[in-house]
Amino acid sequence: MKSDLDKFMKQHDIDVLFITGAAQHNPAMIYFVGTAHVSDAFLIKKRGKAPVLFHYPMEREEAAKSGLPLTSLSKYPISELLKDAGGNYLDAMVLRLKRMLEDLDIRSGRVAIYGKDEIGPVYAMINGLEKLMPGIQMIGFVRDEILSNAMMTKEADEISHIREMGRITTAVVGKTADYITGHKTSRETVVHTDGSPVTIGEVKNLINLWLAEFGVENPEGTIFAIGRDAGIPHSVGTPSDPLKLGQTIVYDIYPCQAGGGYFYDFTRTWSLGYATDEVQALYDQVKQVYDTLVSELEVNAPFSRYQDRTCELFEAMGHPTIRTNQVTEVGYVHSVGHGIGLKVHEKPWSSTTNSSPTDILAPGAAFTLEPGLYYPDRGMGVRIEDSYVVTPDGRFEILADYPKDLILPLK
Amino acid sequence: MKSDLDKFMKQHDIDVLFITGAAQHNPAMIYFVGTAHVSDAFLIKKRGKAPVLFHYPMEREEAAKSGLPLTSLSKYPISELLKDAGGNYLDAMVLRLKRMLEDLDIRSGRVAIYGKDEIGPVYAMINGLEKLMPGIQMIGFVRDEILSNAMMTKEADEISHIREMGRITTAVVGKTADYITGHKTSRETVVHTDGSPVTIGEVKNLINLWLAEFGVENPEGTIFAIGRDAGIPHSVGTPSDPLKLGQTIVYDIYPCQAGGGYFYDFTRTWSLGYATDEVQALYDQVKQVYDTLVSELEVNAPFSRYQDRTCELFEAMGHPTIRTNQVTEVGYVHSVGHGIGLKVHEKPWSSTTNSSPTDILAPGAAFTLEPGLYYPDRGMGVRIEDSYVVTPDGRFEILADYPKDLILPLK
Repeated sequence: MKSDLDKFMKQHDIDVLFITGAAQHNPAMIYFVGTAHVSDAFLIKKRGKAPVLFHYPMEREEAAKSGLPLTSLSKYPISELLKDAGGNYLDAMVLRLKRMLEDLDIRSGRVAIYGKDEIGPVYAMINGLEKLMPGIQMIGFVRDEILSNAMMTKEADEISHIREMGRITTAVVGKTADYITGHKTSRETVVHTDGSPVTIGEVKNLINLWLAEFGVENPEGTIFAIGRDAGIPHSVGTPSDPLKLGQTIVYDIYPCQAGGGYFYDFTRTWSLGYATDEVQALYDQVKQVYDTLVSELEVNAPFSRYQDRTCELFEAMGHPTIRTNQVTEVGYVHSVGHGIGLKVHEKPWSSTTNSSPTDILAPGAAFTLEPGLYYPDRGMGVRIEDSYVVTPDGRFEILADYPKDLILPLK
Repeated sequence: MKSDLDKFMKQHDIDVLFITGAAQHNPAMIYFVGTAHVSDAFLIKKRGKAPVLFHYPMEREEAAKSGLPLTSLSKYPISELLKDAGGNYLDAMVLRLKRMLEDLDIRSGRVAIYGKDEIGPVYAMINGLEKLMPGIQMIGFVRDEILSNAMMTKEADEISHIREMGRITTAVVGKTADYITGHKTSRETVVHTDGSPVTIGEVKNLINLWLAEFGVENPEGTIFAIGRDAGIPHSVGTPSDPLKLGQTIVYDIYPCQAGGGYFYDFTRTWSLGYATDEVQALYDQVKQVYDTLVSELEVNAPFSRYQDRTCELFEAMGHPTIRTNQVTEVGYVHSVGHGIGLKVHEKPWSSTTNSSPTDILAPGAAFTLEPGLYYPDRGMGVRIEDSYVVTPDGRFEILADYPKDLILPLK
């Protein structure tokens, strides 16, 4: 939680957090500012102090909505900076950063950098700053344990945002099922009244429209993939593919609040009309693993325990897994879950190679559980994914329930 | 154009372009890859060679849609990297970058970095790489003149994408006008049949819905602001505000193709029912400046010439401008235009303080013209914005036409 930030900063010997970029699709900035029409801003938080938002003068009213202490960048006029920097634009930008820090009485220390922004200019500026202020050390983390750890355990209002996104997500999935099952079939294909096939692309357009009707976004797209595509976990589907009966459809949907707020993440696998024995058997195995995992969830357990457990269970069923072959593209090929919040993938991590001792199912954590099996050459893939939260008293609650039927019966 | 890249790399003594991040809302990556479900990828282009896309194995089919030479990151197994890096994850990631570069026969040189990505981890990795490969120098530009200059002059297919976005944008603006003018009024307010006021928020929700129906996105939102908000150029509007008659509405809409493709940028100012003399006079002045600018456009002219000209014209009318007062918040307070493309704001720049000799209206450039006047304390603001392209033979074409009526007559 935000209130843990100073503690985490101290643990990692960090004096200042420095966050760049717009308050749009930029989790670190949005965590403090909320989604607002604030672009190219800087947020600087000194340990033990409230964060200060440095914004462009034109965006002052939007910036004020954050409720944070503000400083307008008009305090540092470009013409003056350029004069003081001998006309060099980069040097002027670096000088501005220096003056911003000094205005917060920061003259030395370890500064952790965050934000989703254009790498080139930020890299040039922070390199320049280190040269101009030799007491300052700028630090980036490939595995952040400060901001990410604070963000990992959610406060009640954050969970209610995610739960609301779950309600919207499953409502859209329900509309999708209703739309498909409202059609006739012809020659093993879902068809319109004029006999033309219903395609993956049409369904995806409708999904986008329904999401927009709910006022939410899907900045990273939606997976709606049939047959061989369903067997490739990150294939998003081929727009021209017709909806054929008896083939697996993997429907993975991960929308967020407008402007890049909280995400949800949800997957169902469907087989239209009927399921072949082979598909049904694969589905039953994934469902069995899903149910086993849910029954074994324990508060404060390392998330990676469930990744190991998933590999163990699938291996016992005879499937290759990424534990037995790190680069396998058949069988169980990904990790069993991840945190969700302002990023669709965040801490806690379940990967056994990519997690730390802090990747635990702590109270406040919101995370996915998503076992799956993939056999692209057999034209099939199955994944079942729900999102859960650990309550303050250590119980596990599903954030949005939805039926897990494999077969969608058609007219 | 892309074909100029090697020339620009040579001019600036750059041996390699290094681009990080997803092919979603990341202009530098999308420029080469197109919008695709490719996350956390790396694109490396050696001068004189085709760019190579390094992608995660799960995303191989999406990556293949780029048509680029591919290398799967499964070529560099994490377990092996970790072993060779003594178990340190950051060092393992740095080692992977080193091996990727070496596989392209890059062992030294000046590497320019691009991409919209999480600053922290990228900063950590490129700093590490410089230490591991002392012959490599990583370089970020606050004013890039390589990739940005190539992107500035568009090829025919890029212009047709922008033109199509212009068609969609103006269609949505037309729907907005039709929706508003289809209502009754009561007590100087646009109302529903039940007498309740139509609000800014309702109209903005409909704009989002219409954009979604066209299959496009507005990742940076839409400005639909009335009265005092219209006088603050980057206020996006207050959702609860009712649509009052006789007040300026600034409607600035800048959507992009799904996933972060090409943008359009367009503004109209409306006054519902009637215009006060004061509003009409302000509007006429902006329109007169707009018309003057259009009549004076010259191929290969520095874009900043038109910023100076706009200031000159508005100053002659008695308005403060940012030329007379760099931090003014009334009068003419911004720059007169910018390039559009995979970014909503890109080269050429028109700012007199923030442009370079390459910011010219060259053939292939797509750009906005958007003079405006702002008086928040008088509850009004006016901006007129269209987007233009310079044709290969040096003519100026508007990319999407739309009426410039100030008054929207109501029932």
